[in-house]
Amino acid sequence: MSELQKTERTQVKRRAQRGVYDRETVNALLDEGLVCHIGFLAEGTPLVIPTGYGRRGEKLYIHGSSVSGMLGALAGGIDACVTVTLLDGIVLARAVFHHSMNYRSVVLLGKATLIVDPVEKLVALEVITEHLVPGRWDDARKPTPQELDATAVLSFPIEEASAKIRTGPPIDKEADYGSPIWAGVLPLALTASEAITDERCLPGATVPDYIRTYKRGTSLKA
Amino acid sequence: MSELQKTERTQVKRRAQRGVYDRETVNALLDEGLVCHIGFLAEGTPLVIPTGYGRRGEKLYIHGSSVSGMLGALAGGIDACVTVTLLDGIVLARAVFHHSMNYRSVVLLGKATLIVDPVEKLVALEVITEHLVPGRWDDARKPTPQELDATAVLSFPIEEASAKIRTGPPIDKEADYGSPIWAGVLPLALTASEAITDERCLPGATVPDYIRTYKRGTSLKA
Repeated sequence: MSELQKTERTQVKRRAQRGVYDRETVNALLDEGLVCHIGFLAEGTPLVIPTGYGRRGEKLYIHGSSVSGMLGALAGGIDACVTVTLLDGIVLARAVFHHSMNYRSVVLLGKATLIVDPVEKLVALEVITEHLVPGRWDDARKPTPQELDATAVLSFPIEEASAKIRTGPPIDKEADYGSPIWAGVLPLALTASEAITDERCLPGATVPDYIRTYKRGTSLKA
Repeated sequence: MSELQKTERTQVKRRAQRGVYDRETVNALLDEGLVCHIGFLAEGTPLVIPTGYGRRGEKLYIHGSSVSGMLGALAGGIDACVTVTLLDGIVLARAVFHHSMNYRSVVLLGKATLIVDPVEKLVALEVITEHLVPGRWDDARKPTPQELDATAVLSFPIEEASAKIRTGPPIDKEADYGSPIWAGVLPLALTASEAITDERCLPGATVPDYIRTYKRGTSLKA
């Protein structure tokens, strides 16, 4: 397994045993997540903004309006942090103090770059679209030159990164295991329900298979 | 409806029509979310860290180890941003360009304060626990003085805040509505599945009703 750049900044300090630094794990978590939270300084104020993304190799792509304030700020080469969090469950211990969550999170540090090459830009948009809904790119109408001009796409390096993972049952103090209090894990997952067809679809438009069977999961890109 | 403090920093700029500034909406979103993402500057680096929380009135509480680097930094009175994001669906337009997500997000700006009063601290821990799983506080073993000492609880003001919300079907360019491409919304929700009882529970321990019927939703605190 290839290791990521483990720096003082990305080393997991609290509960260090939950830190993971291999690229395969980080990539799998990034592929499973749907939105990231991007942190950056905007005129001295730390801001955290949610947005979609996609991954290809060692790059994470984000996009938005070419007049977006966030993308403009990020494209200026400022330090940024991209965090992706997957919630897997609520951990109910016997003691309030030992309640926790099962989760998998990734923190990436670095600077974004504006993609200027039109071919790379189109590929990045395909990656972002396919990350959201695998199978959608080939079905949908592709961007026009005007739409491409109205879109900014940034590339963020997956280099200085770490993951933090908690799994498994609650861990109580030994003395509390004699208590009759119920304890366990309540699993959580982001799940899709039945698709709602747009009222303005032409008669006969049917829900595509890749929508009917949509599922997030670690096997997404397996 | 009471209005929040709308400042240059919290005013929604991109797609301003999605901005919401009333306290009832912001509170409902905070009550429905499970984790927030906190952004702050740590030795010059913007960091975004996920964590649980709870809300009571106009305060958001977060907690962690009393030796946590993040809580120590935040308690020092630095600027921070707390963002909560709820994903409601994937918006599949006919054009790639008009793909979007249905979401509800809240951004809070301000500075955290360490809670030193032991009564307020215990109340805040109850709020955080009940936010995670309503009904759990009365069931679980309460914190000992030692556990309280090992826990830091911060209070964050819900004052300078805004919400951003997208709902509804895809919006395509008028010309694209003549296309046979399927379009619509794929609803998403964070859902709980059947609870897993800890293997070390005493014989006869049964899953409590508040776990069996657990559901996140806007009616959580209605």
